[in-house]
Amino acid sequence: MTSYAKFFDENKKELLDEFFTFLSFPGISTDTAYHEDLARCREWVKQKLLELGMEVEVWQPENGAPAVLFASNLEAGADKPTVLFYNHYDVQPVDPLDLWTSPPFEPALRNGEIYARGAQDNKGQCFYVLAALKAIQEIDGSFPVNIKLVIEGEEEIGSHGLAQLLPGKKEQVKADALLVVDTGMKSLDQPAITLGIRGVLTMDVDFFGSKNDLHSGSHGGVVYNPLHALVEVLAKLHDRDGRVTVPGFYDKVSTLSEKEREAFDFDFNEERYLDQIGCEPTGGESGFSPYERAWLRPTLEINGIQGGYAGEGFKTVIPAEAHAKISCRLVANQDPIEIADLVADYIESIAPPGIRVNVKINPGKGAALQTSPHTQVAQTLTKAFTEVFKKPCRCIMEGGSIPIASLLQQVSGAETVMVGLGLPTDNMHAPDEHFGVERLKLGMCVMAHALNSWG
Amino acid sequence: MTSYAKFFDENKKELLDEFFTFLSFPGISTDTAYHEDLARCREWVKQKLLELGMEVEVWQPENGAPAVLFASNLEAGADKPTVLFYNHYDVQPVDPLDLWTSPPFEPALRNGEIYARGAQDNKGQCFYVLAALKAIQEIDGSFPVNIKLVIEGEEEIGSHGLAQLLPGKKEQVKADALLVVDTGMKSLDQPAITLGIRGVLTMDVDFFGSKNDLHSGSHGGVVYNPLHALVEVLAKLHDRDGRVTVPGFYDKVSTLSEKEREAFDFDFNEERYLDQIGCEPTGGESGFSPYERAWLRPTLEINGIQGGYAGEGFKTVIPAEAHAKISCRLVANQDPIEIADLVADYIESIAPPGIRVNVKINPGKGAALQTSPHTQVAQTLTKAFTEVFKKPCRCIMEGGSIPIASLLQQVSGAETVMVGLGLPTDNMHAPDEHFGVERLKLGMCVMAHALNSWG
Repeated sequence: MTSYAKFFDENKKELLDEFFTFLSFPGISTDTAYHEDLARCREWVKQKLLELGMEVEVWQPENGAPAVLFASNLEAGADKPTVLFYNHYDVQPVDPLDLWTSPPFEPALRNGEIYARGAQDNKGQCFYVLAALKAIQEIDGSFPVNIKLVIEGEEEIGSHGLAQLLPGKKEQVKADALLVVDTGMKSLDQPAITLGIRGVLTMDVDFFGSKNDLHSGSHGGVVYNPLHALVEVLAKLHDRDGRVTVPGFYDKVSTLSEKEREAFDFDFNEERYLDQIGCEPTGGESGFSPYERAWLRPTLEINGIQGGYAGEGFKTVIPAEAHAKISCRLVANQDPIEIADLVADYIESIAPPGIRVNVKINPGKGAALQTSPHTQVAQTLTKAFTEVFKKPCRCIMEGGSIPIASLLQQVSGAETVMVGLGLPTDNMHAPDEHFGVERLKLGMCVMAHALNSWG
Repeated sequence: MTSYAKFFDENKKELLDEFFTFLSFPGISTDTAYHEDLARCREWVKQKLLELGMEVEVWQPENGAPAVLFASNLEAGADKPTVLFYNHYDVQPVDPLDLWTSPPFEPALRNGEIYARGAQDNKGQCFYVLAALKAIQEIDGSFPVNIKLVIEGEEEIGSHGLAQLLPGKKEQVKADALLVVDTGMKSLDQPAITLGIRGVLTMDVDFFGSKNDLHSGSHGGVVYNPLHALVEVLAKLHDRDGRVTVPGFYDKVSTLSEKEREAFDFDFNEERYLDQIGCEPTGGESGFSPYERAWLRPTLEINGIQGGYAGEGFKTVIPAEAHAKISCRLVANQDPIEIADLVADYIESIAPPGIRVNVKINPGKGAALQTSPHTQVAQTLTKAFTEVFKKPCRCIMEGGSIPIASLLQQVSGAETVMVGLGLPTDNMHAPDEHFGVERLKLGMCVMAHALNSWG
C-alpha cells in the first residue's frame, strides 16, 4: 500500500466528515433561491483551500452570478511545471424529490456508496483533488509542482460568468497542464482518461399557424396544422441512415487516423448497455459503432416537443403553435456558430407554406475539445491510473460537453486531459446520485501519484 | 312582419329574462363539481317543457351521468307527421377565465350580442326552439304536428349516456323528421341547412425507448430518441400531396355526384377566412377546394404532442417516452372502428427498431352522417329559412362531428337535417362566446314557419 492510500485509511473518518459537510450545502445554481447556500458552500471550499496554504481569489462575474474561486500555490518554483485543476462546487436541482431514498442534502452511506446530490458531480471529484493536495502536504511537506485551481459555481447552468472572466485572467490561469476533473470511465476495471468531449449548441424552434387554436372538425383539412409542419420538418432533418441532412453539417468533421484510433477503447458492451439503459443502441448514423457515434460523430437531437393538447382525455384541437427544442453535439473542427446557422436556415427553408417559423439560437454554445494521447499530461495521468488501479489505462472520449473546457485550455495555454472516476451508474443529475468511498480513495491516489511523478 | 316575429318583439323582455336565467346555470358536464348546477339547469328546462304542455320523461343513464330530458306532445294526432328535435343543455368549460370580458355565467348584452358560456352552443339554439313552440301555442293555440324533443346533458363529453339509452327507446323517439339543432352557417346573409357532418375517432400514441430520460451528450447518436421515432412515424402518415398514407384509408370514401353537388354551397371566401382565422387554407389534400376538404374528405390530424423538456430554458435530454394524440374525421361510408384499426396497425408497422409503441383507440367514436337535399324535412327547412331570411337557403355540410346524430337518425328512423344559426365568429368553446338577440328571433321564426308548413 502506498503512503497516500495509507493516509486515506488513517484519516478516513475525518475525510468523510469533511466530505459530508461539503455535500450538505444545497448549492443549486439554476435556482437563485439557493444562491445563499451556494455562497456558504463556496466559503467552505475557500477555507479548505486556505488551509492547504493556497492564495485564494474570489472572482465575481459582473452580473452577480455565482463567483469563481481561483487558488494557487507557486512555491515549487519557476523551474517546475504548473498544473491547473478545474472543478465546480454547484450542483443540479433535485427534482423529483420523492424518488430519493434519503434526502439529497443529508449524505447517507449505504454499501460503501455515499448518496447525495453532487456526490459524484462534481463535489466527489473536487474533494479527492483537495484530499490529494492535503495528503501530499502531510506526507511530503510541500507540493512537487506549482498548483492552480479554478473551482466555479455556475457549471450546471453554462459557466457564463467564468467564460466572461477568463479572457481577462490569462496570466493567472497560465499553466503547463490542465486537468478538467469532471468525467468518468466505463467501469471501475477499465481505468481511462478522457481526451475528447463534444461541443454543444441548442435552439428553440417555434411554428405558428392560425390566430387561435382551431376546432379540428371545422378546420381539419383546411389549415396546415403547425404540428404536422413541425413533425414533417423535424423528420426531414435525418435521412434513412440516421445522417443529418442539413447541408454542410458534416463538411468540417475530422476523423481519427488509424494510428490515433489505437489509443482509444472503442469496445462497447451491448449487454451491459441494455441492462443499464433499457434499450438497444439503435440510434445515430448507420455504419458507425456506438462509441464512434457518441465520440466522433456530431448529432442533432430533439430534446422536447410541445404542441396542442397532450393531457388527460382528449381535445380535438388544431393548435395555433407548435414548439421544439433541438440540440447538436459537435466534434472537432465544427464551429458552433456556423453549424447553428446552417441548421436554423435549413429548418426555415423547408417549412411548408401557411406556417410562420421562428428559430432562436441560444447562448451557451461550446466547441468540441480533442486532445492528443501523446502529451506529457496524458502520459502522466495514464501512468498514475495504471499504478493505482493496477490495470492498463486506456483513452476514451465523452459524448457530452463541458463548454468551458475548450476556453480554459485556450486561455491557459495548457496541454489538457479530462479525468474523473464517474461511472454510468452514478445517477448523475438524477435521484439517488452516489459516489463510492473507495473511489474517493482511488481518485486521491491517482492525483497524488500524478503530481508526484511530474515533480 | 309575421305574427311570430311580432310575438318575439312584444315578449322580448320576458324572453330575454328567461334566456339569461337559462345561461346562468354553470352546467359544465366535463367537471363533476358542476353536476349539481347541471341538474338544476335540467330541472329548469323540464319546467319550461311542462309549461309548453309536454309530457316529460327524465332518462337516467346507468352510470349516474347527466340525465336526458325526453318531451313529447302528440296531440296533433296520428295522421300528422312527428318532428323530433335534438338539443343539449350542458356546456363547455370556461378556461381561460381571465380572457372573458364579463363572467361566463353572468350573461351580458353588448351591441346586440349576448355574452355567456353556452350563449350559442347549445343553449341559444335550444332556447329558440322552445320559444318557437311557445309562440305557436300562444298564436295558433295548438301544435300543427306531433312534437318530440331529446335534450341531453352530456353532449360536450361524448353523449355516452344517451348512446347507451337510445337502443331501448326506439318507440319513444320514432319520428318522421329529425332536426339536430346544433350547427351554423357561413354568415348571416348566407342562410343554410346542414346535410352532412363528419365522423370522428381519436387515439393516443405512445412511444417508449430507454428506461429513464438520458443525457443527450453521452447517449446522443447511440439510442434511438423516441421523439425522433415519433416525428418520423407521424410525418409518414401524409404524403407530399397531403393525402393520408394509411393503406385502405380512402377505400370506402364516397363522392357526391355532379347533381348532388349542385345543392351545396362550396364557395369559400379566402379573404374572410384569413381575417377570421389568421392563416391561409394551405392544409389538407391538394386537388380539393377548402370546403371539399372540410366536408367530403377524411382527415388525420395530430391534436397534441408531448415529449422531453419543453419548458423555460433548456434541458439536453433524450426522453424515455414521447406521446401524441391523433384524431381522424371520417366521411360517409367509413367505419370508425375499421379506420381506427387501420391507422393503429400502420403506426405500429412503421415504428423503427429499438422503440416500443402503444396505440390506444379511445371510445366515443362516431360515424359520419350525410343526408339528401331531397327529403321533406330538407325542403321544409329550406323553405322556412328562405321565407324568414328573405334570401335563398343553400345546403352546406360541417367538418365537425356530432357523434350522437347518426345513432339518433338510425333509432328514430327519421329523415334528418342539421340546422342552426351559429356563426364562425361566435367563439364557441372559447372565451367570450356570444349569440345575437336578432338570431334568437330569426331562429324562433324559422322553427315556427317550418312546423307550420308541415302542419
